[in-house]
Amino acid sequence: MVTVKMRLQDYIRDIPDWPKKGILFRDITPLLADAEAFGCAVDMLCAAFPDTAVDYVAAVEARGFIFGSAVARKLNVGFVPIRKKDKLPFKTESITYELEYGTDTLQVHADAVGKDANVLMIDDLLATGGTMAAACRLIEKIGGRVVGVAFLIELAQLGGAKKLTGYDFKSVIRY
Amino acid sequence: MVTVKMRLQDYIRDIPDWPKKGILFRDITPLLADAEAFGCAVDMLCAAFPDTAVDYVAAVEARGFIFGSAVARKLNVGFVPIRKKDKLPFKTESITYELEYGTDTLQVHADAVGKDANVLMIDDLLATGGTMAAACRLIEKIGGRVVGVAFLIELAQLGGAKKLTGYDFKSVIRY
Repeated sequence: MVTVKMRLQDYIRDIPDWPKKGILFRDITPLLADAEAFGCAVDMLCAAFPDTAVDYVAAVEARGFIFGSAVARKLNVGFVPIRKKDKLPFKTESITYELEYGTDTLQVHADAVGKDANVLMIDDLLATGGTMAAACRLIEKIGGRVVGVAFLIELAQLGGAKKLTGYDFKSVIRY
Repeated sequence: MVTVKMRLQDYIRDIPDWPKKGILFRDITPLLADAEAFGCAVDMLCAAFPDTAVDYVAAVEARGFIFGSAVARKLNVGFVPIRKKDKLPFKTESITYELEYGTDTLQVHADAVGKDANVLMIDDLLATGGTMAAACRLIEKIGGRVVGVAFLIELAQLGGAKKLTGYDFKSVIRY
């Protein structure tokens, strides 16, 4: 398990000072470009909650769609896209949450999951956790039950875990 | 084949007058939410070019990522995300193309595919074709070879096929 995790880290490229000075960005595109590494990452996300029944995988655009979709297919369950404001065409439920500067809004179709459906949340990155906490609450607003939250990468020192109190979350790679 | 196509259409929801009056939007979220329909759609996209060697699947954010990622995993090849301006952290190549009103810019990492790599382009929807034509040219700018373009849905009356002259494109569902 640890060996595999080490190998995946080898496919993540460090970009200093992006998107702004002082931030070390973890670029997942080399991992995505390598079929074996990408497959391994998807497998490990699927294995994060091995004993949990999952009805849907939900993920937030845009990078979340990459892993969310692949995990949904691998688990053979439906996929629920959570999007920025005014991107979804049917009746939506919304949640607005605070960012470092200002606010952002996420939306999901109100009928996206049935009542008490088990929903696994997927994203590539846990940073401050604000977006994922909002996404979890949004799924609950439409009647779903968040049975797990899995990230490819966790930036542990940013303290995102605190924002996810009450949810069972796991990460494949921890920095 | 025809039967399967008919079934997939049953999972696409028509939304009149969205995003603006007079437009009939084809909403794929019911298809994504159904594991069997989503799996079938991915299988049919993979089957679009059965005799073509593929090294990478490339797709444009955000909805393109959903099918692009799943197809890449199913074909066991790497995935190349094509993004809007200033979203990718490494050295990028760009292309600007015309929309109905104004222009838009797509970017891809300059090292995303090796020289002469065979790239399969995936998107959910062929409408006017401008975005996909730009995406194909962008992959060529970084040395890739576009060996096929596959869409889940083609809105045939919008004439997108013309914009893709010179590329081999297929669509699973045609309206």
